[in-house]
Amino acid sequence: MFFASDNSGPVPPQVMAALTTANTGHVMSYGTDALTDAVTDQIRTLFEAPDASVHLVATGTAANSLALATLCQPFDTVFCSPVAHIHEDECNAPEFYTGGAKLTLVPGDDRMTADALRIAIKGQGNRGVHGPQRGPVSITQVTEQGNLYSLTELRALATVAQNYDLPVHLDGARFANACVALNCTPAEMSWKVGIDVAVFGGTKNGLMGVEAVIFFNPAHARAFELRRKRGAHLFSKHRYLAAQMSAYLQDDLWRDLATTANARSAQLLDGLQGLAEIRNDARANMIFAALPRALHQKAQAAGAQYHISGDLNGEDPDGLLTARFVCDWSIDPTDIEAFLDLLGKA
Amino acid sequence: MFFASDNSGPVPPQVMAALTTANTGHVMSYGTDALTDAVTDQIRTLFEAPDASVHLVATGTAANSLALATLCQPFDTVFCSPVAHIHEDECNAPEFYTGGAKLTLVPGDDRMTADALRIAIKGQGNRGVHGPQRGPVSITQVTEQGNLYSLTELRALATVAQNYDLPVHLDGARFANACVALNCTPAEMSWKVGIDVAVFGGTKNGLMGVEAVIFFNPAHARAFELRRKRGAHLFSKHRYLAAQMSAYLQDDLWRDLATTANARSAQLLDGLQGLAEIRNDARANMIFAALPRALHQKAQAAGAQYHISGDLNGEDPDGLLTARFVCDWSIDPTDIEAFLDLLGKA
Amino acid sequence: MFFASDNSGPVPPQVMAALTTANTGHVMSYGTDALTDAVTDQIRTLFEAPDASVHLVATGTAANSLALATLCQPFDTVFCSPVAHIHEDECNAPEFYTGGAKLTLVPGDDRMTADALRIAIKGQGNRGVHGPQRGPVSITQVTEQGNLYSLTELRALATVAQNYDLPVHLDGARFANACVALNCTPAEMSWKVGIDVAVFGGTKNGLMGVEAVIFFNPAHARAFELRRKRGAHLFSKHRYLAAQMSAYLQDDLWRDLATTANARSAQLLDGLQGLAEIRNDARANMIFAALPRALHQKAQAAGAQYHISGDLNGEDPDGLLTARFVCDWSIDPTDIEAFLDLLGKA
Amino acid sequence: MFFASDNSGPVPPQVMAALTTANTGHVMSYGTDALTDAVTDQIRTLFEAPDASVHLVATGTAANSLALATLCQPFDTVFCSPVAHIHEDECNAPEFYTGGAKLTLVPGDDRMTADALRIAIKGQGNRGVHGPQRGPVSITQVTEQGNLYSLTELRALATVAQNYDLPVHLDGARFANACVALNCTPAEMSWKVGIDVAVFGGTKNGLMGVEAVIFFNPAHARAFELRRKRGAHLFSKHRYLAAQMSAYLQDDLWRDLATTANARSAQLLDGLQGLAEIRNDARANMIFAALPRALHQKAQAAGAQYHISGDLNGEDPDGLLTARFVCDWSIDPTDIEAFLDLLGKA
Repeated sequence: MFFASDNSGPVPPQVMAALTTANTGHVMSYGTDALTDAVTDQIRTLFEAPDASVHLVATGTAANSLALATLCQPFDTVFCSPVAHIHEDECNAPEFYTGGAKLTLVPGDDRMTADALRIAIKGQGNRGVHGPQRGPVSITQVTEQGNLYSLTELRALATVAQNYDLPVHLDGARFANACVALNCTPAEMSWKVGIDVAVFGGTKNGLMGVEAVIFFNPAHARAFELRRKRGAHLFSKHRYLAAQMSAYLQDDLWRDLATTANARSAQLLDGLQGLAEIRNDARANMIFAALPRALHQKAQAAGAQYHISGDLNGEDPDGLLTARFVCDWSIDPTDIEAFLDLLGKA
Repeated sequence: MFFASDNSGPVPPQVMAALTTANTGHVMSYGTDALTDAVTDQIRTLFEAPDASVHLVATGTAANSLALATLCQPFDTVFCSPVAHIHEDECNAPEFYTGGAKLTLVPGDDRMTADALRIAIKGQGNRGVHGPQRGPVSITQVTEQGNLYSLTELRALATVAQNYDLPVHLDGARFANACVALNCTPAEMSWKVGIDVAVFGGTKNGLMGVEAVIFFNPAHARAFELRRKRGAHLFSKHRYLAAQMSAYLQDDLWRDLATTANARSAQLLDGLQGLAEIRNDARANMIFAALPRALHQKAQAAGAQYHISGDLNGEDPDGLLTARFVCDWSIDPTDIEAFLDLLGKA
Repeated sequence: MFFASDNSGPVPPQVMAALTTANTGHVMSYGTDALTDAVTDQIRTLFEAPDASVHLVATGTAANSLALATLCQPFDTVFCSPVAHIHEDECNAPEFYTGGAKLTLVPGDDRMTADALRIAIKGQGNRGVHGPQRGPVSITQVTEQGNLYSLTELRALATVAQNYDLPVHLDGARFANACVALNCTPAEMSWKVGIDVAVFGGTKNGLMGVEAVIFFNPAHARAFELRRKRGAHLFSKHRYLAAQMSAYLQDDLWRDLATTANARSAQLLDGLQGLAEIRNDARANMIFAALPRALHQKAQAAGAQYHISGDLNGEDPDGLLTARFVCDWSIDPTDIEAFLDLLGKA
Repeated sequence: MFFASDNSGPVPPQVMAALTTANTGHVMSYGTDALTDAVTDQIRTLFEAPDASVHLVATGTAANSLALATLCQPFDTVFCSPVAHIHEDECNAPEFYTGGAKLTLVPGDDRMTADALRIAIKGQGNRGVHGPQRGPVSITQVTEQGNLYSLTELRALATVAQNYDLPVHLDGARFANACVALNCTPAEMSWKVGIDVAVFGGTKNGLMGVEAVIFFNPAHARAFELRRKRGAHLFSKHRYLAAQMSAYLQDDLWRDLATTANARSAQLLDGLQGLAEIRNDARANMIFAALPRALHQKAQAAGAQYHISGDLNGEDPDGLLTARFVCDWSIDPTDIEAFLDLLGKA
């Protein structure tokens, strides 16, 4: 009964097999190997972007920070949601990698609206040299609250950015879950709606630790590579990143894994109806749901693992506390049933 | 016939097995898992340093840069050899992570002498606020030229640093090869000679990508952890770093791998005698040797892979060009024989 | 009729005289001269802080950024108001000088409340290594909106900070105007209410360009001096900074200048009553006041200079637009009368 | 008898007069005033560079660091002499402002040779992404050792840089002294020999603290201005920088001051012949000369101020110690005579 995160499960056997297959003989290091060439080609094909530059890194924070730093001057500001991972969960990595750029929080929730973004951009960059200059817009899909932007909403945000000549970054730590939920292609959810650089996340969707950073305009490729090396994120034994990604791409494993994760989440969501107040749109693999404190206490005592906002040991047993449930591909459906049984019987 | 680098071979089966073993069920992320606790404990035991703080990262550059940044102010200078990896091969990562500290190159070769270090330190930090301030001393063992410091030499360097109250960093990308070559313990080659922070490298000695950073004074642990996260080097699925390290420590695999690599290098060295002029002390797993151009041409045409300084296609067939031969644990002795045969027949 | 800023007027004759007096013979450079020693001593006396370390810089942004960088780690966040100068008007200088620390905006207006500060601090630093760590609290007195914190309010903010072991920075670009308005001593408005580092601004109050940074705990003095030099803010001909400050301190010129500026502002405020809606407490030297668009148009056409929020050329002549009026020591009272006459007759 | 530095003397009366003249009425701040426009135009005229962008800052370190940061990526390296001010005397300011670029020291003395520069450039940037990339070349004229590059030598260095598409920065803290010594125009010593950005120093030649940074290609103007503001080097009361520069340019005061300073140095040099071994070419305003220890002791005891390399209190009275004598415009010729008398009688 583990719903705490999608970075806690095992990797699928295909990934282990790919690592084993790759684990033979000597190959050139630092990403100059044939397998790396192959997977970056495959990603270009998958994204219908033959000119894109594609780079692998091992952490999502590296992917985001390096991508933003490549698009940004240190006197700029990045526009993002107040709950964006780059703002809340990366310990100032974007500020570090950009050389001290600022993050301007677009008022609202996890999903920025085009209007709010436009107002935020207008409100910055009008102080001449005194204030920070307008820089990239960063969008997270799936959001940190488990919500989805529609393709129309993404396009609207990107259009606002384009109107100010600002590049658009997509934090796609859960890119696959979003694609599946929206039933769209990677291209449709990236450059076709105006994204300039996308992070095609693998780690939360079953890899040990690989993210692909995709610049649809390859002009930035060299600067990214130098920043990646300077940031100590260029792996010598790069084939082991490539191997993971190779398995991920093979027969659309990325899509299968996300389909499974989303289905598990749907199963859980289904069972929670009636027991909990659902607080997000929950179409991907994260559910935010409010349940009575007493129920949480019982569930956690029985070994269920998930994050709760608020004080689990507070007084009112009927008080609602919002939980975050995350399903990854590896969760056993019987675990979900067991968890729902536990809640239902309480 | 691959002697180009020790970051190009496969990982040993024990490491693959450990990854497979670790690849089950859900475990907490970001290094809060039991396996991480276990391996950091084992490293403390191995280094006879019960109070040390131990941290895993995935690249050697991250290990070095984060360690130096933790010990250094941005207005300081780091003392190192002119051919140190941190100076030549990390694309300004130390400058980046330290916030702009300088690297002062101690005149001489790959092995700094205590005298040269003392003079370099004296020569810095005597301009009041105008010049950079004295910062950490960084030592590389095995050096980039494949040479070794004796324990006495290490102690002498550390003593110079201590006399100026400067901390000492050991770039131990080839820590294991050095330990084996010197027939000493990790403790003897680190804190017992005055090292303050050691990088216990795994990647060049058979791991996919894991280095342990060991602070013998744990006062710096928290700052290191925050810098690691800020640098995007904290892995969510940390168990896969821990699993590699676990295999590495089990039954002293690290020592066995290095013993094998050094033995392969010795085999090659033995065969090169008479054919080549040996240019370094070659007790670890790297040989620098000068051979006639024509011989290089023949070897490379036959598929041998290794780095050569100078112009392979120059005119004089008898002109000596220095090659770097590196052996990792996975090189087949028959490959070495084949290579030597090739040279010998030429 | 110049009310646009207090950084646009001339310097008083005493300052010119002090420069002339100092302009003789050779003296040691970089702040090692006797005049610098004298004025830093005088500042210690003025602030009743015999142990304080006192440093001169030439711009307010340098004073703030260097002070914060000295108190802050790059993985920290600074707490400040959403309209703080350090956030809006320094082009990411604090992020630059701190090496990429974040600024957390305490919800509310220009005057942070202790409650809002406490909530903001609680809301940060509870994500372990994932989020930025709690760093300095930065307070601006007089605020950017021309308002004042009472001594009680300052103490309340500092107490919140102290409860979390966080240092407190006072952006005192208009320190003197605040002291006069509150009728308090520099000590009462700084260390006696819990300020750890205060900027005693001179530039907006009549100097060409000098600010004193005062650390009440001198432990940070050396790091500040190194950061000042590294930031290129150590003047070789430091005597000319010292000379300005010397005049500023002589016979409490700083207080006289601020008294005059505040009195001019009071004169203007008095005349605006009935004509305008006053939008701030206006006890120092800045008035925020709303007047009809038509009146602004007339005033500006007649040569009055001041900043207006909103569109001066909009349609509704009766629409209220908020102006910022700033008085410095050099404004001629007859100018104010002329301006008020102009408004009154309209 | 003050020969310690040219940053220790008074400013000439013309500069004081210009400050007084400028010190009237309210003018717009942050460099948007008419006087700033006028002096930047005058500098364009003086440098015969109608398209150049010209910016004023208050310290030489700011001028150098901001100029280099504008031309440089953080993964680059700057090429300079081992005794360059940017390397030895700016407490890592270039590293700070560039975001962590490296400084590559071109082997040799204070005057880089074209050959040594070419070799240094070739030696960098050939490690792919692993090493720092080739960045700007920085030349100091007059050098820190008081020597001059001829125009031919400058052109040769710039040609090497151009061959690698690298921009050239001229640290001209003593630009005027060099122009006078070479009897050339500012244009001849800058863009006409291939300089891309020149620092036209004022501080060491009589101003309180003003340097002009001149980009001959104005494409970098905006980035420089944003970096200047972010570095806290944009003065609000910018007119006082402009006023100093205005006086400096009026009737070629800059040339007169340097002519005087160089003449004083020549007078001193003349007198030192026979008494001392001259160690540099001494055509500008700095003399490096070796004298016996006993003579130094006597001179310093008599109140002469200048820097000595080595131990003044060593044993051998006949041991030669090298002194640095610097003359500024304000030194009284009779002081020089007195000093020479003192030496001569000893």
